[in-house]
Amino acid sequence: MLPILRALRDDGPVSRAELGDRLGLTRPRLTSEVERLVKAGFLAEAGMAASRGGRRSTLVAIHPRLRFAAVDLGASSIDIEVVNGRLEPLAAYREPADIRQGPKAILHRVSELLAKARAEGVYERLDAVGIGVPGPVSFRDGVPVSPPIMPGWDRYPVRELLAREHGCPVVVDNDVNIMAVGERHGGVARSVDDFLFVKIGTGIGCGIHLTGGVYRGVDGCAGDIGHIQVDASGPTCSCGNTGCLEAVFSGAALARDALAAARSGASPALAERLAKATGLTAKDVADGAAEGDVVCIQLIREGGRRLGGVLAALVSFANPSMIVIGGGLAQLGHVLLAEIRSVVYRRSLPLATGNLPVVLSELSGRAGVTGAAVLASDTAFEQIP
Amino acid sequence: MLPILRALRDDGPVSRAELGDRLGLTRPRLTSEVERLVKAGFLAEAGMAASRGGRRSTLVAIHPRLRFAAVDLGASSIDIEVVNGRLEPLAAYREPADIRQGPKAILHRVSELLAKARAEGVYERLDAVGIGVPGPVSFRDGVPVSPPIMPGWDRYPVRELLAREHGCPVVVDNDVNIMAVGERHGGVARSVDDFLFVKIGTGIGCGIHLTGGVYRGVDGCAGDIGHIQVDASGPTCSCGNTGCLEAVFSGAALARDALAAARSGASPALAERLAKATGLTAKDVADGAAEGDVVCIQLIREGGRRLGGVLAALVSFANPSMIVIGGGLAQLGHVLLAEIRSVVYRRSLPLATGNLPVVLSELSGRAGVTGAAVLASDTAFEQIP
Repeated sequence: MLPILRALRDDGPVSRAELGDRLGLTRPRLTSEVERLVKAGFLAEAGMAASRGGRRSTLVAIHPRLRFAAVDLGASSIDIEVVNGRLEPLAAYREPADIRQGPKAILHRVSELLAKARAEGVYERLDAVGIGVPGPVSFRDGVPVSPPIMPGWDRYPVRELLAREHGCPVVVDNDVNIMAVGERHGGVARSVDDFLFVKIGTGIGCGIHLTGGVYRGVDGCAGDIGHIQVDASGPTCSCGNTGCLEAVFSGAALARDALAAARSGASPALAERLAKATGLTAKDVADGAAEGDVVCIQLIREGGRRLGGVLAALVSFANPSMIVIGGGLAQLGHVLLAEIRSVVYRRSLPLATGNLPVVLSELSGRAGVTGAAVLASDTAFEQIP
Repeated sequence: MLPILRALRDDGPVSRAELGDRLGLTRPRLTSEVERLVKAGFLAEAGMAASRGGRRSTLVAIHPRLRFAAVDLGASSIDIEVVNGRLEPLAAYREPADIRQGPKAILHRVSELLAKARAEGVYERLDAVGIGVPGPVSFRDGVPVSPPIMPGWDRYPVRELLAREHGCPVVVDNDVNIMAVGERHGGVARSVDDFLFVKIGTGIGCGIHLTGGVYRGVDGCAGDIGHIQVDASGPTCSCGNTGCLEAVFSGAALARDALAAARSGASPALAERLAKATGLTAKDVADGAAEGDVVCIQLIREGGRRLGGVLAALVSFANPSMIVIGGGLAQLGHVLLAEIRSVVYRRSLPLATGNLPVVLSELSGRAGVTGAAVLASDTAFEQIP
């Protein structure tokens, strides 16, 4: 029964009596459910609870043996955590990896890292795996679908392959969706039902969390906001259109603009950095801005203005209760945030922005693995016979 | 029990045996539910069903005495239908009315029209009232909230007042939301779960239908797409911003542009029409386009291009399975539709538009009252003790 396991996962051990009260279950119903979950190996007795007057009640807890693997594949990184039933990390691995190496090489490396955790005694067997990939996913089929930056991954049977390898349920989702789930579980959007998680990294994407959970759209590509046109006469995008949000503001776009500003001499801070390196990244722009370099500050503000315009439109459309900004470029920090806020508040109707916080992700780099762990455990819980 | 009543409302009388099969109810459960609904006055026996072999089963039907009032308030019109439990109209009234007269005058006129229906024997008492208004609504509180074109209506207790007057449950919603519900019930979106209903009238709004029903957002103003900026150097909008979609394309914007084109002599068709009237409307532009007037065709295409750009962004964001175009300006017909389609298909990712129909409303003028009747009956069904 999903609510019992979720409560124990998220809030820790609790007495039978309190669990029954909290979930509104009758005593016989609770007893039979607890028995079933103990038998399935998901729940364990955990001693006696402190007395509430009357008979003392036994504590129940999520089973200490449970293990979930959480995998967050980025365009250029692999993040893995193995967590227990409370979703506490027992092992964590992070390394650079180019998603364009293709599914065989990348998933092989995932298996190696998980084997390492196993060899180190972190787990004996996994109860579920959750994995996020940087592209559109058919959530139902557990496969990436036409992912633009993932050559070789189209319709690759990620779920089937991992499920066979680990003998457990597997859930595959888009990287931005798992970040939204993570932020809702343990970050700034905790207990917020309707919010947008905007990831600004190499590209730009949006996780849409509505009351019932992540909204994925009909084909699983909801939230693909990186290709919304913001400038009809803007640069050509990797998708073939012109002036997409992602083509004017993203990690890739910022690196391109920084390089131009360094070479033209417009930005001394960037020119100095380029002299010491082979290229520039968003980090250089952030550092230059922190030093007061005008071009760097302008680049961030201009990007924030573009993104803000798109978010203002989405606020008018979706009327969310929070916007969370995450991903690598969230490091651009408060200059970026100030510009986004200014545009959103100016361009949306007062009714929709009256109580609308626009905030940075709290989990930052861990949002993805956290969300993957949540989805993995939910999937395992749902499949208990 | 909602599913039983909805099935009888939407599909008509059915044998007990078939009803049980269809909803997956055991015989004792079905018997007790049917008994309860008969007692509540919502369900009636309707003779014997044709034999399916074995014992003949009795037919059950929605109670023939049920009456719902459906009210669709537009910026400049009142539409009312009184319907039976199958939502078949028994009386219909439509008349011009300026919403700016304020809630007392408008709701008084609604009462007069309903009293007329009663006097004509259409109903003895109402089981629920559904009403749509042209502005944002707090669905939970049953009141309009800061509606821009409805002076005097802010937080006016529409639900409370109508409930007291008619002694039945009342549901208040935004006009575009009820149109979406109507189109889903009896129009082109029948059986489609995730779609956008775009109303182009005096203003522009969007009803968002997701799996669970209408999505209203946190403050009830989701779908307010008329104030998304499409042209930073565009005309000033009634909301005080510049270049809102509604300021460049809507009934009001089209009338303004048509007048300019008539006066400048750029459009002979419009000049001719203006000579015979005191002003121009979207209808004149539609007629001019049908006659081949180039300026009229351009006005429609330019509007379709602007709206198409916004819809392309929303398709990227929400990944719906259908877009329905309704409202008064849907009369601009296939020139408008062709332009919208062209922009949406060109500007959105192939995955999201692979199976995306962009179609005209089938119910057109009746979408609003149809949806109001659906919401009214749902509300009555939900409140059965």
